[in-house]
Amino acid sequence: MISTNADLAEQLVPATYVRQGLDAVRSREKLVTTLLAQRRLPDEGWDDVSVELLLQTLSAMDSNNFSGSAGAGEREARVFSPLVARRHFHLAHGVGRSGDVAAVQPKAAGSSLMVQVANALAKDALRLAGMRAVQAALVLPVATGMSLMLVLLQLKESKPNARYVIWPRIDQKSCFKSILAAGLTPLVLANVLVEENGKSGGYLKTNLAGMAALVEQHGVDNILAVMSTTSCFAPRAYDSVQDIAKLCQEWGIAHVINNAYGVQASKCVHQVELAMRTGRVDAVVQSLDKNFMVPVGGAIICSASCEVVDRVAKFYPGRASATPTLDFFITMLQMGKNGYRRLLDERKRLSGYMREKLEALAVKEGERVLHVSNNEISFALTLETFCSDVVDMQEKARQLTLLGAMLFSRGVSGARVVSCLDVKTIAGHEFNSFGAHHDGFPVAYITFACALGMQLDEVDLLVTKLRKTIHEWRAKQRKVSTVASAAPHECQYEQS
Amino acid sequence: MISTNADLAEQLVPATYVRQGLDAVRSREKLVTTLLAQRRLPDEGWDDVSVELLLQTLSAMDSNNFSGSAGAGEREARVFSPLVARRHFHLAHGVGRSGDVAAVQPKAAGSSLMVQVANALAKDALRLAGMRAVQAALVLPVATGMSLMLVLLQLKESKPNARYVIWPRIDQKSCFKSILAAGLTPLVLANVLVEENGKSGGYLKTNLAGMAALVEQHGVDNILAVMSTTSCFAPRAYDSVQDIAKLCQEWGIAHVINNAYGVQASKCVHQVELAMRTGRVDAVVQSLDKNFMVPVGGAIICSASCEVVDRVAKFYPGRASATPTLDFFITMLQMGKNGYRRLLDERKRLSGYMREKLEALAVKEGERVLHVSNNEISFALTLETFCSDVVDMQEKARQLTLLGAMLFSRGVSGARVVSCLDVKTIAGHEFNSFGAHHDGFPVAYITFACALGMQLDEVDLLVTKLRKTIHEWRAKQRKVSTVASAAPHECQYEQS
Amino acid sequence: MISTNADLAEQLVPATYVRQGLDAVRSREKLVTTLLAQRRLPDEGWDDVSVELLLQTLSAMDSNNFSGSAGAGEREARVFSPLVARRHFHLAHGVGRSGDVAAVQPKAAGSSLMVQVANALAKDALRLAGMRAVQAALVLPVATGMSLMLVLLQLKESKPNARYVIWPRIDQKSCFKSILAAGLTPLVLANVLVEENGKSGGYLKTNLAGMAALVEQHGVDNILAVMSTTSCFAPRAYDSVQDIAKLCQEWGIAHVINNAYGVQASKCVHQVELAMRTGRVDAVVQSLDKNFMVPVGGAIICSASCEVVDRVAKFYPGRASATPTLDFFITMLQMGKNGYRRLLDERKRLSGYMREKLEALAVKEGERVLHVSNNEISFALTLETFCSDVVDMQEKARQLTLLGAMLFSRGVSGARVVSCLDVKTIAGHEFNSFGAHHDGFPVAYITFACALGMQLDEVDLLVTKLRKTIHEWRAKQRKVSTVASAAPHECQYEQS
Amino acid sequence: MISTNADLAEQLVPATYVRQGLDAVRSREKLVTTLLAQRRLPDEGWDDVSVELLLQTLSAMDSNNFSGSAGAGEREARVFSPLVARRHFHLAHGVGRSGDVAAVQPKAAGSSLMVQVANALAKDALRLAGMRAVQAALVLPVATGMSLMLVLLQLKESKPNARYVIWPRIDQKSCFKSILAAGLTPLVLANVLVEENGKSGGYLKTNLAGMAALVEQHGVDNILAVMSTTSCFAPRAYDSVQDIAKLCQEWGIAHVINNAYGVQASKCVHQVELAMRTGRVDAVVQSLDKNFMVPVGGAIICSASCEVVDRVAKFYPGRASATPTLDFFITMLQMGKNGYRRLLDERKRLSGYMREKLEALAVKEGERVLHVSNNEISFALTLETFCSDVVDMQEKARQLTLLGAMLFSRGVSGARVVSCLDVKTIAGHEFNSFGAHHDGFPVAYITFACALGMQLDEVDLLVTKLRKTIHEWRAKQRKVSTVASAAPHECQYEQS
Repeated sequence: MISTNADLAEQLVPATYVRQGLDAVRSREKLVTTLLAQRRLPDEGWDDVSVELLLQTLSAMDSNNFSGSAGAGEREARVFSPLVARRHFHLAHGVGRSGDVAAVQPKAAGSSLMVQVANALAKDALRLAGMRAVQAALVLPVATGMSLMLVLLQLKESKPNARYVIWPRIDQKSCFKSILAAGLTPLVLANVLVEENGKSGGYLKTNLAGMAALVEQHGVDNILAVMSTTSCFAPRAYDSVQDIAKLCQEWGIAHVINNAYGVQASKCVHQVELAMRTGRVDAVVQSLDKNFMVPVGGAIICSASCEVVDRVAKFYPGRASATPTLDFFITMLQMGKNGYRRLLDERKRLSGYMREKLEALAVKEGERVLHVSNNEISFALTLETFCSDVVDMQEKARQLTLLGAMLFSRGVSGARVVSCLDVKTIAGHEFNSFGAHHDGFPVAYITFACALGMQLDEVDLLVTKLRKTIHEWRAKQRKVSTVASAAPHECQYEQS
Repeated sequence: MISTNADLAEQLVPATYVRQGLDAVRSREKLVTTLLAQRRLPDEGWDDVSVELLLQTLSAMDSNNFSGSAGAGEREARVFSPLVARRHFHLAHGVGRSGDVAAVQPKAAGSSLMVQVANALAKDALRLAGMRAVQAALVLPVATGMSLMLVLLQLKESKPNARYVIWPRIDQKSCFKSILAAGLTPLVLANVLVEENGKSGGYLKTNLAGMAALVEQHGVDNILAVMSTTSCFAPRAYDSVQDIAKLCQEWGIAHVINNAYGVQASKCVHQVELAMRTGRVDAVVQSLDKNFMVPVGGAIICSASCEVVDRVAKFYPGRASATPTLDFFITMLQMGKNGYRRLLDERKRLSGYMREKLEALAVKEGERVLHVSNNEISFALTLETFCSDVVDMQEKARQLTLLGAMLFSRGVSGARVVSCLDVKTIAGHEFNSFGAHHDGFPVAYITFACALGMQLDEVDLLVTKLRKTIHEWRAKQRKVSTVASAAPHECQYEQS
Repeated sequence: MISTNADLAEQLVPATYVRQGLDAVRSREKLVTTLLAQRRLPDEGWDDVSVELLLQTLSAMDSNNFSGSAGAGEREARVFSPLVARRHFHLAHGVGRSGDVAAVQPKAAGSSLMVQVANALAKDALRLAGMRAVQAALVLPVATGMSLMLVLLQLKESKPNARYVIWPRIDQKSCFKSILAAGLTPLVLANVLVEENGKSGGYLKTNLAGMAALVEQHGVDNILAVMSTTSCFAPRAYDSVQDIAKLCQEWGIAHVINNAYGVQASKCVHQVELAMRTGRVDAVVQSLDKNFMVPVGGAIICSASCEVVDRVAKFYPGRASATPTLDFFITMLQMGKNGYRRLLDERKRLSGYMREKLEALAVKEGERVLHVSNNEISFALTLETFCSDVVDMQEKARQLTLLGAMLFSRGVSGARVVSCLDVKTIAGHEFNSFGAHHDGFPVAYITFACALGMQLDEVDLLVTKLRKTIHEWRAKQRKVSTVASAAPHECQYEQS
Repeated sequence: MISTNADLAEQLVPATYVRQGLDAVRSREKLVTTLLAQRRLPDEGWDDVSVELLLQTLSAMDSNNFSGSAGAGEREARVFSPLVARRHFHLAHGVGRSGDVAAVQPKAAGSSLMVQVANALAKDALRLAGMRAVQAALVLPVATGMSLMLVLLQLKESKPNARYVIWPRIDQKSCFKSILAAGLTPLVLANVLVEENGKSGGYLKTNLAGMAALVEQHGVDNILAVMSTTSCFAPRAYDSVQDIAKLCQEWGIAHVINNAYGVQASKCVHQVELAMRTGRVDAVVQSLDKNFMVPVGGAIICSASCEVVDRVAKFYPGRASATPTLDFFITMLQMGKNGYRRLLDERKRLSGYMREKLEALAVKEGERVLHVSNNEISFALTLETFCSDVVDMQEKARQLTLLGAMLFSRGVSGARVVSCLDVKTIAGHEFNSFGAHHDGFPVAYITFACALGMQLDEVDLLVTKLRKTIHEWRAKQRKVSTVASAAPHECQYEQS
């Protein structure tokens, strides 16, 4: 702005100062040049001024911010509330066109530019995290569940008579519902329990033989896809995605990986990478909020070929909110490559720290942290000595649930007590021991995740609160061992 | 905040002033009381301070803003960028849960409260606009096309073998693609052209007899739904939704109304209301941005019964962005009942004004504004005398398109030139005379919409620019009548 | 930003759209060019995006926003709170240098540029309002009282032995205190009461003969200046600034005009203009908030020669807050010439309307609106029939004050009841009938101002509330005619 | 807001969640309770949401934000630009009244409350920093120079015939000009040079004997005050404020301490504390921006008795900008006691680090860092070997200045080269060797400050850039040793 007007500025302020100021302006412009040329995360994160300057310029390029124009369409991105206009940096046209959610919009050159770069940054971020095989990535303005559904619907187009999706069991509703919502029938594949030596517990891994049996049973032509899962709560391990990828390639069955929050864990990423390189992976879906610390609402779908991503983009009916894309765009610019790596490293380090602290607590309480080598994010602390004397299973479940409720009301969010006593029915499918990913998981436990952005203080606080709450819960148990109690309102906390 | 601390405040500032200040604070609190109690648009719009005060309070109720808590889940709504956190007023949990997009979130009481009220405001706003029959409304964080797809997918669940959707032709891609995306097959129903006395032109209405024939031909059991359309570009009129509703009831076929931007037009709303009252309407879908002046990204699905809306909510796999809901929430609070009515009235008045101005221009140019009584939003100005001597149809199409491109580059957005010479194929379906909603529409024309939020100045500007551009275009034609020209880059403007 | 990167942008988004977007960006840049070249109010006000784009660019030019720099001074404009940084658009260096409050700052080219242009806009705005003689204007980051003090202190430098300032009485504390604060002695000049035919009341004008007598009495060498006042509450009229200017020129005495909120009234401005053109006016001081609708905190000092303004700037010890300047800068850009004129016109029109409404009410209540031709802003409604039967003067004052308090607590702010019964002593100077600008003003009254930015609705509301409050007050009076009462807390409202 | 509406909220969202959310809201309200009750810095800094929630509530208490009120005064805090309103959180009434800059405003209960608390926080912050003797503090909306002038003017009121201010020389213009601006005459007191053993250099301390001589010479009755200085550039040390305070008490002369940026240095603070406890200190003035990391524009005046502070407040003519006060208020809330202490500790530690790094560089370059024990903020690196062979003093000055200019243009701001060759005349007073605080300082040097908020990275960057620039400068010198050169535009950088 001023740079085109340097001469005029120098009539008001000495040229030396103007020039030095303009050097600074130009160094910001150079950031933009580099961004547009390389379409990668900047090495160092941008400051607020740089980001806002870019966004203001982009919004000036959208027709709803033109001065002296007349909007004669049914959709002119007029915004009533200044508060709303401001929170969108005056970008109001959303993303995509009726034909393609990744398409540029004639009325919105600025928004379109942002979207194109954001998608490039998505690819770059995934590659930085270790998924080097990724050739195309698309930020979808819907979250993981809907993204999985869209991928399935799109796959179905080319194989309209296939109605089954093989789904290694993972006790999380969204992905299961995404199959149902796509009008498909899930074939639930039970996990294999690998027990630890002489101890009740162990971990869960993919039943590859069972998968083959299902394919045999239903026929390759009737099976649309395998939906495998990486990120999940312990004691479930990542699915053996590389093996599945190889089998899918062999069978000619599509393979969709639900990598919801797996980008943050290097081992997980590595397995997805191997799967993409050595077998069939049609699409990998990852959540925006969990992996990139933005508000809930978006996902990235990626693939080793542009084709699948393009097809999903073109399949999407109509326009969509630009918000998830914009949040991701801003965040990546402000995080930068170094910031992102730092976050990944810190999480890894913290994850080890959390495990140690939990193990120390476990020892004191006569419990264990289950050993699940293929899960670096979620930890399961057994509750073997909890309610060990309660015979009534319903009462036991209730009391274990109370522990979770107490933690929640004491400021620990996200911890999940799995009593292995719940039965849940979703759309006619019955899941025993819901939450444990396995019908007969042998021990109750509680899970804790060490997710991206967690702080050391938080881990300490968690362990302190956990210890205190366990003691309170035990004290309560002793008191009510005869009386039937537990504040009913504290139970209402289920968090999935 | 201060109200609980009045005594302390009065030690610093005289009690009289504190009390008067607190009266004002309390009058804002009363706004909230009224909002929570009535769940309706406030009579008068709220100012920025009131809205922000409420949003700050709501965000303080969400767990990611709690101080002294430990987040041990995989999704803790941690936000990296302060710019991003700020634009979301620190509300980061999105909407819904894995089981239900309308469900409340334990970790996000504030967000959940906002969502519940927003849905109630959606119902109220639709009823205010004239859809009194609406009993349930849900703000969906996806736009119209995806919303239609979700409705269809949900309907399909209960009638899994029906694969057809009857679709009275409307030349807009999103709704057509929503049928395809749902894995269904559209049965395209040609419109009936009602000609004006002795003039080429006329308007298009629903072919009810043709619809009955399609039902007869494919069988009631194989037809999932009729998808009718209200808001559309002239010369297509609103579909005869009341008649369709009666027929659907008779046939036992579902009926979904695509009311994309129809809420703003009273006649349109009235017909939807009659359809809901007297026949079968499973769901009506309307765009958030076009009807309520928010950025692109959301839609409202509504119904005369809570059941359908609930089923769609429960059908939605996973969480979603809170942004469309939040934008709508803020906007309705700031618009208020009176503001909304004023906007509706102004649009109606302005629509008459635009028609008059266009007719005056038409007379001067030897053209007409087509008479389409059942379309109060979009106007079609004939281009009968344009290129009337050009024999080569491709050249004619190119030259007419140029007119549109010229308008666009001169700051008129949203005007659409329909040459009636385009053929478009979408997923194997061929549409002749695409844009005209009719294979053999007899005259080229250009459409202009008078949408909510348009200003009188803008109409004047539009007509001035239109006149000028027509003259420039004609001058150009004269010049190049022999030479083949037209700047190629100006053609690249198609705006659907 | 993008404009230097058009080629790169065109690799991502079709060139046509990029070019149209960049045209829009450039049209904003042209606004800046015009601003820097002409240094005048833009014809049309700028929108938020344009203003913020400019401010972001300016702040990028300040050293505290440079990346990769090291601050080794004691003042490096580091800002701790992001909330604070944001509200200042990251401009943190303030204005001026230790030597000159109008000087440019080497570390802050952006801020400096803003300040230079803001001062030019101040000159332009004053000239637009009608003060065509203004040759220099300076936005001071202190309000009117302090600005007057600075002018007096500066004048004193060149006439160190003169200790008197002639001050035609105006019952407002700040200007009186500005004389005292400068270490000078005010010579209070009583106003002349010009009575209306046979009615108690009238208006107050400058006592020119008295002024001459004071000069005679104290000697020209001992008198530093005359401080005249234009804007004031009725029934005081504007001082006869033109006559005073001529006399000051004759006497060789400085003349400072306190034009606090006079810029908004054309007649007032005209008289200041005449004074500047035909006599001696060293400086005119006007409030920023009252004349230009910004928050309290700044003033403009102007003069028909650059010399005085420069001297005051150079006299100012040290740096100062950039906020008043920045507020003014933003506001003038957003108001534009047309917006400013519209505001001035509306105020004038509304002022006539308010007078009519008050006169209508006055007739009904048996009162009058005093006729003060040289005051277009403030109106005095007599309270002759109020407490006319109360003999105890203290009680009468109390009861009249109650009327003001009641108005205040019913939402009418700024109305002042002048009982003509108060005596106030400021720094040893006793003022009888304080508030009335005259020791023996014959009738109690209440004043109302029609200031810039007032709305028609507000005038209506004012008159409605006034009528209602008068009736309530009268009802109360009747009730307590024997009892001595009145809620004590309601009296605590004095608003000067 | 919601807390008064919990029942209604619980109709929409389960009571458990609402209650947990409201607990969080209430914990924020408790922050406010604690703040209003204790009027001290909170232990931990507040987050953005808490601060904004409080500010929104406060602004709701100001009359300009009341709904349904009518403003009939000349000053109704109407704000034209939404951008401006927003940056002030809709607080537009400024601070103070015409009678007293610390007074509460009837129309602005919220602003007034903020101001009262801010002043209390100022007192608390100063006491936290070590000035335990402080009994009253006032945030003035003018910077240090103006604040000093106001203090002097106020002191003059009670001793109108005293015209001298004894001023131990400090080469900074604002404080000197503040004496002149107050219409007073400075008596410049030369500093004593304390030489280091056998090396040219040393440090400067207060000439107490000289001060006594001046008092003797001009007479106690003619001397209004001593204005001593603590924070200053090396090699000047803090004035011996304790000794001065004792002498002033003895002499009955006022004592004003210019503690511009001394609050950040514990030793400096300690000496001011001792001075206040053991002698006469009428007022201490400290800059807001330098000590508390807010934008330029305010100062705190404090005293061991409420009296002086009150008198200055009451002396201030008229209202003022609320911005410096608001910036300070927000910053202190966000910094908290722990944050403030952390900053103070870090600066102290970093100051030692900077000294070490500079000394290491000095050794390599054959220079020294001057030993000035009573200055913990500013360091002077000698330039003895620079231009040691240049005979022409003007040329030498020019070349040394170039070094500073080069540093500035290479991103080192705030470093000052003092050639000891400049002569500056301010208002008739001639200062030899300006910048060095001493007519005959024996060696050229360059100063660097380690101010609050500096980062370790920045110190490293500074030293790296310094080393590089010195080498470049030396290379240049070699090249031009015969030619007379130096880019003229690089010289224009003086930063005071």
